[in-house]
Amino acid sequence: MKSTFLTRLPITLFGIPAVIFLLSEGGMIFSGFITIVIFLCLIEFYDLKASSGSRPNKFFGIIMALITCFMYIQFPNSNAVILLSSFTIIIILSLLFEMFSGHQNPLDNVNITLSGVLYVAGLLGAMIALRNWDSFNGSRFTMAMIFSVWVCDSCAYTFGMLFGKKKLIERISPKKTIVGFIAGIIGSFLSFYIMDSVGFIQIELSLSQLLILTFIVGICGQLGDFVESMFKRDAEVKDSGKILLGHGGVLDRFDSLIFTSPLVFIFVSFL
Amino acid sequence: MKSTFLTRLPITLFGIPAVIFLLSEGGMIFSGFITIVIFLCLIEFYDLKASSGSRPNKFFGIIMALITCFMYIQFPNSNAVILLSSFTIIIILSLLFEMFSGHQNPLDNVNITLSGVLYVAGLLGAMIALRNWDSFNGSRFTMAMIFSVWVCDSCAYTFGMLFGKKKLIERISPKKTIVGFIAGIIGSFLSFYIMDSVGFIQIELSLSQLLILTFIVGICGQLGDFVESMFKRDAEVKDSGKILLGHGGVLDRFDSLIFTSPLVFIFVSFL
Repeated sequence: MKSTFLTRLPITLFGIPAVIFLLSEGGMIFSGFITIVIFLCLIEFYDLKASSGSRPNKFFGIIMALITCFMYIQFPNSNAVILLSSFTIIIILSLLFEMFSGHQNPLDNVNITLSGVLYVAGLLGAMIALRNWDSFNGSRFTMAMIFSVWVCDSCAYTFGMLFGKKKLIERISPKKTIVGFIAGIIGSFLSFYIMDSVGFIQIELSLSQLLILTFIVGICGQLGDFVESMFKRDAEVKDSGKILLGHGGVLDRFDSLIFTSPLVFIFVSFL
Repeated sequence: MKSTFLTRLPITLFGIPAVIFLLSEGGMIFSGFITIVIFLCLIEFYDLKASSGSRPNKFFGIIMALITCFMYIQFPNSNAVILLSSFTIIIILSLLFEMFSGHQNPLDNVNITLSGVLYVAGLLGAMIALRNWDSFNGSRFTMAMIFSVWVCDSCAYTFGMLFGKKKLIERISPKKTIVGFIAGIIGSFLSFYIMDSVGFIQIELSLSQLLILTFIVGICGQLGDFVESMFKRDAEVKDSGKILLGHGGVLDRFDSLIFTSPLVFIFVSFL
């Protein structure tokens, strides 16, 4: 317990200010950061499946992920024809590569390659578009989302450990409790409520808007965590990677944001 | 041999004029036809994998395929935010559904669901956009592509059967020969050359443009056929379906067009 806390500490101490700095810088610095995160998450996602014998094509997957990030950087003014051309050509090339390679289970390999791009880059990449939308607002909205995810995770962890008994979905995640899940939702609501009241989020939000954000971060974010647990369980591994000391892999750290980022971006697009 | 010819005949006699009629009508009638074809192909694609124990989610797959068709109908003026919202929500819902369902191999099920949409609807759907682009041209360009695919297939089949000995990639398709493959390429070139010379394609094409089209139809189209054979081999079935008497499934009939349609659409977009 203590050793986990201590190994986690350096990443936490360095990570939080680093993310705040990158967020407030925005532009190509933040887009580049998210692109690197997507790159690392995608590699971990592919390695999860590789550990159970499949052979996703990392090369084509990464190229498609880069195109997706590029689309989000220009969103919604991307050139539809160039996007379509790039995706079509990469999909066809990856199918042909699989055919000529003579690997076992070619269809599975292509399926993993393509769906990894949709799951990781398609969903998480929306954070680039969200931050770009947020420019006029000093990136406060994106920061509020990330803070709320952190508060939600911490509340779920702490209250779950202290008071949680009944498990939520034991089959998928043997540690997560109902108490923790509810504490996460309340934590997420309170964090948004406080940030809104003190004027941190520079846009004034109605109660129903606060509740939608709570639904996205408190419920969908935690479910994103569950989905990633399901992937790991499927691959029979504990952590998605080891790159972040004590925090597991990059995918473990960004699993909630994979669900919350595109949903919050959709929310602000209709604001 | 003879019986195959006889069972094929009704579909051929009915199919060719029907396709020409639908093409010349264009608009929502043709878009609707291609949407139905995509629906049938997607079901066959999912059934291929279901035969080897996976459980793709047909419901979410079909909804995403419909959204893709809708995108192609409006291409390139689709509303990016609405497209992104729909895809994001369906991807998240299909992940959550898989998590709560408790099926075996949840990740594989999601992977097949998503990549089926990309392979079938993402690629074949481009024919809708191609036909819409072709409206000013009396749909002659789209017709020329389909005729050339038919000529290519017939030449490959006939010359392969009469003179073909050496197999091209026996591991994947034990029937396709090198002679057939080359005959298909030549047939595709000649068909485009003749249709261009007699003015059937109302746009005048240069020799290099004819060669690009030959590459797309003669080479990529036949490779599309191979890729579908790879899928069937993977699933250990002979035909993708039985809906078309003697012609196998719908996916068997449209396998070349899955590769040629998006590539020809990209070609005309840069024309």
